Amino acid sequence: MQQGHRNGEHSDHEQAIFEAGIKLGALYHQWVGTPVSQESAGSVEEAIEKAVILQPFVEEITVRLDRSLMKKNVFGYSELSGLMYNVEIVTRVGFSYCRAALAPENGYPLMRIVECHEITHLSDH
Amino acid sequence: MQQGHRNGEHSDHEQAIFEAGIKLGALYHQWVGTPVSQESAGSVEEAIEKAVILQPFVEEITVRLDRSLMKKNVFGYSELSGLMYNVEIVTRVGFSYCRAALAPENGYPLMRIVECHEITHLSDH
Amino acid sequence: MQQGHRNGEHSDHEQAIFEAGIKLGALYHQWVGTPVSQESAGSVEEAIEKAVILQPFVEEITVRLDRSLMKKNVFGYSELSGLMYNVEIVTRVGFSYCRAALAPENGYPLMRIVECHEITHLSDH
Amino acid sequence: MQQGHRNGEHSDHEQAIFEAGIKLGALYHQWVGTPVSQESAGSVEEAIEKAVILQPFVEEITVRLDRSLMKKNVFGYSELSGLMYNVEIVTRVGFSYCRAALAPENGYPLMRIVECHEITHLSDH
Repeated sequence: MQQGHRNGEHSDHEQAIFEAGIKLGALYHQWVGTPVSQESAGSVEEAIEKAVILQPFVEEITVRLDRSLMKKNVFGYSELSGLMYNVEIVTRVGFSYCRAALAPENGYPLMRIVECHEITHLSDH
Repeated sequence: MQQGHRNGEHSDHEQAIFEAGIKLGALYHQWVGTPVSQESAGSVEEAIEKAVILQPFVEEITVRLDRSLMKKNVFGYSELSGLMYNVEIVTRVGFSYCRAALAPENGYPLMRIVECHEITHLSDH
Repeated sequence: MQQGHRNGEHSDHEQAIFEAGIKLGALYHQWVGTPVSQESAGSVEEAIEKAVILQPFVEEITVRLDRSLMKKNVFGYSELSGLMYNVEIVTRVGFSYCRAALAPENGYPLMRIVECHEITHLSDH
Repeated sequence: MQQGHRNGEHSDHEQAIFEAGIKLGALYHQWVGTPVSQESAGSVEEAIEKAVILQPFVEEITVRLDRSLMKKNVFGYSELSGLMYNVEIVTRVGFSYCRAALAPENGYPLMRIVECHEITHLSDH
């Protein structure tokens, strides 16, 4: 048994993945707990999208909150919980793209890498 | 020296004040740290207003974020900080109203009671 | 016919109530969503208490998180939710004290004024 | 010019990086804004560490908050800001490890991949 390791520089591909993770982790904890209703959900979606797109390396972000989970408490509203999130994000570093998602899976708000793309140049001739 | 105390029931007037405090404390910590720019500030203001108005005893809420404090970091955006908040809220419990505010004062994001109203009925005759 | 009135200055008694509301609203939204387990709950309780006691007008704060609600998700931990909070706080402004609480009531994390005290001086003789 | 892409499955190596990003993004926004002082900083560090270590794929986490940045406001305390964080995290997925960090760089709270390791097995013979 041996230990191999890769050290030092990381690729644009790796950083695109890292940045996607950062943004999903950040938005989850920034907005969880916000008072929300089916009527106000649209304004929260828009505010999250506009906040996330400001951050470095973010190319695209879509946020949909599951209104069917917005059960009214005794005062007639709900709180944004992790399972309400349906988010897709695309990050880019150099010519590397990462698409990642946050969505419920088996009762857990799962974040996962959806796909990665790299754009390569061939020499002109 | 004696200790006097009032115990048990509190008035609508007192609860209106209490509720105003709750809402200001809550919104401050819910949104502080959100990525924000002069362009996206409007969507954050709207999302905060729509979230707060859902909560019990809130009659009015206006949120203005000080764009002059939104200095761009090396990535071209800012984070919502306490001193950016200019908020006025009106709460009502029964016939008692409380207007309270969150705004910078001497470099501190101060929350304060602005005024309280109580509506009393006189018998018609 | 209705009579409205505005009582300009607010009393220490009123501000003590206001401050209690601020602190409960703030702590609720600051920590909700934190990953937590029965084993780590004590460290969260301590961190909340030490953060809240720093704030102006806070005399006492006790935080107990209901471990029985810390159901493990598929990854073996839970998230701090509103119904887990059992908090008591005492605020003081001048010679006025307010004791307030955050605890579940009918499935809602209710914040309420518990009691108010005012200490009065009699002339020495 | 051609477009190459890699689709579908991602490696343990990639997921370890993704998970490190998630955890750093999450902790940043969960605790930013918390009232803190030089005296209470230790309790916040401990609470963050104990919360993060609960989460899946986290092997190690160390949190140090820069006390020199904890300037007292008019009420004698400070708020946890992004530049105070000095965090190192190690995530593991299968036999792949990722070490990542959050620390100030040029006045920005930068998250970066420090190094990645993969442990490989050689057949015994």
